[in-house]
Amino acid sequence: MAQRETFVLVLLLLAAELMFPKIKAMSVGSRKRSKEWSGGDGEGSFCLSWRLAVEANNVVAWPTVPPQCSRYVETYMINGQYDRDLELIVEEILAYVNQTFLVGDAMDAWILDVDDTCISNIYYYKAKKYGCDPYDPSAFRTWAMKGGCPAIPSVLRLFNILLDKGFKVFLVTGRDEETLGQVTMNNLHNQGFIGYESLILRNASYKGKSAMKYKSDVRKQLEDKGYRIWGNVGDQWSDIRGDYLGNRTFKLPNPMYFVP
Amino acid sequence: MAQRETFVLVLLLLAAELMFPKIKAMSVGSRKRSKEWSGGDGEGSFCLSWRLAVEANNVVAWPTVPPQCSRYVETYMINGQYDRDLELIVEEILAYVNQTFLVGDAMDAWILDVDDTCISNIYYYKAKKYGCDPYDPSAFRTWAMKGGCPAIPSVLRLFNILLDKGFKVFLVTGRDEETLGQVTMNNLHNQGFIGYESLILRNASYKGKSAMKYKSDVRKQLEDKGYRIWGNVGDQWSDIRGDYLGNRTFKLPNPMYFVP
Repeated sequence: MAQRETFVLVLLLLAAELMFPKIKAMSVGSRKRSKEWSGGDGEGSFCLSWRLAVEANNVVAWPTVPPQCSRYVETYMINGQYDRDLELIVEEILAYVNQTFLVGDAMDAWILDVDDTCISNIYYYKAKKYGCDPYDPSAFRTWAMKGGCPAIPSVLRLFNILLDKGFKVFLVTGRDEETLGQVTMNNLHNQGFIGYESLILRNASYKGKSAMKYKSDVRKQLEDKGYRIWGNVGDQWSDIRGDYLGNRTFKLPNPMYFVP
Repeated sequence: MAQRETFVLVLLLLAAELMFPKIKAMSVGSRKRSKEWSGGDGEGSFCLSWRLAVEANNVVAWPTVPPQCSRYVETYMINGQYDRDLELIVEEILAYVNQTFLVGDAMDAWILDVDDTCISNIYYYKAKKYGCDPYDPSAFRTWAMKGGCPAIPSVLRLFNILLDKGFKVFLVTGRDEETLGQVTMNNLHNQGFIGYESLILRNASYKGKSAMKYKSDVRKQLEDKGYRIWGNVGDQWSDIRGDYLGNRTFKLPNPMYFVP
């Protein structure tokens, strides 16, 4: 009886295949996608190596995402792996936070970067093929002026826990103070980043200087004022390299662009 | 005629399925493996996040591979992705090497770590569930005493190119000088690492000290002698953090163990 049912099913599948050859093509397509992610010899395997090398700071100063990784980076960003990567790092940060014993003199500090750390530019980068198009400072300014960057949920959760624990949270961004100061403050407020100590933006004297130099100087000024930097979180290596780095640094994922 | 052949084939497949129900189980198994790598919600997705966080130095001081990532790390190490990750980083190193202009006074130096940089401990770690078993210093010493670590091919290729370019290559390892000095030298020689400037091992004065401290001191001594460290490559963050890091550092993948 079971054999007879299987036989009927096989006949139906046979009929379907004869009638809809597309089914076969679809199956090849999904095998291809699966190979992209599978650690096989396909492009996805190269793109996984490339993304790993970016996150480990082995590949630096890359102007755009390699064109063959366009789909890979899109899938990574929107299909959940990016969010899970963030979530795991935030759990790691919280494990560290729970081991710290704050002095409690209002000088226990924590530094967060802004773009693609607190708030996301993913909708902007969607229109820039997730980083395959070259950097376009004028288009980015237009986007940032809208003040519509959504919060990154896991970092907003971290932000609120840091405040509850008693950290003075400093948001340090390479955005231009004069043109983007107010809109960035509003954007952060609208997205729930409320209660931080200070939002520090790039002023005229740092125009054209590297983010690493500018952010190192900001941290030096904080330490000179007596702040102890317990943690420092950013999506760029230039956020967490240089001087006065703080006690622990954390690199959030970003395979879309590189800031020197 | 084509329909008839397909029909016969289907009958054969049907017969095979009735005779070998294992085929079905295998297909489920490979679907499971594919999910592990797929960026889906499964354990592989967590393990990919974990591996990324290890390589970006977000997860530190981890005693063992998370047990649920045992199969993931095994697959990563032996199914080609590890080799491809290495290959991409070596290509990146060579791109950097090709941009350098050596002074040519025999003081242009390059530093390579030894274990899982020049030579591999993968056969040892296979018996330790690819890092799921806790660190076993006595068993590792027994393994190292055999002198049977195979070269990592992409790093051997890099090593020979560095020599050709005129770099003085220093191999710096946390292995104990007294007990493992000779066997390590022989192992490296047997595997083709010939022509380096010096193999520097941990002597009694650094016993119990962190690899980061010991390796920083080694690099300081090299710089004090007048060497310019152009590059510094290791599989551990303790190889490439600390002081006197050199002009560029490169982190090779290693999801099997962490050295502080």
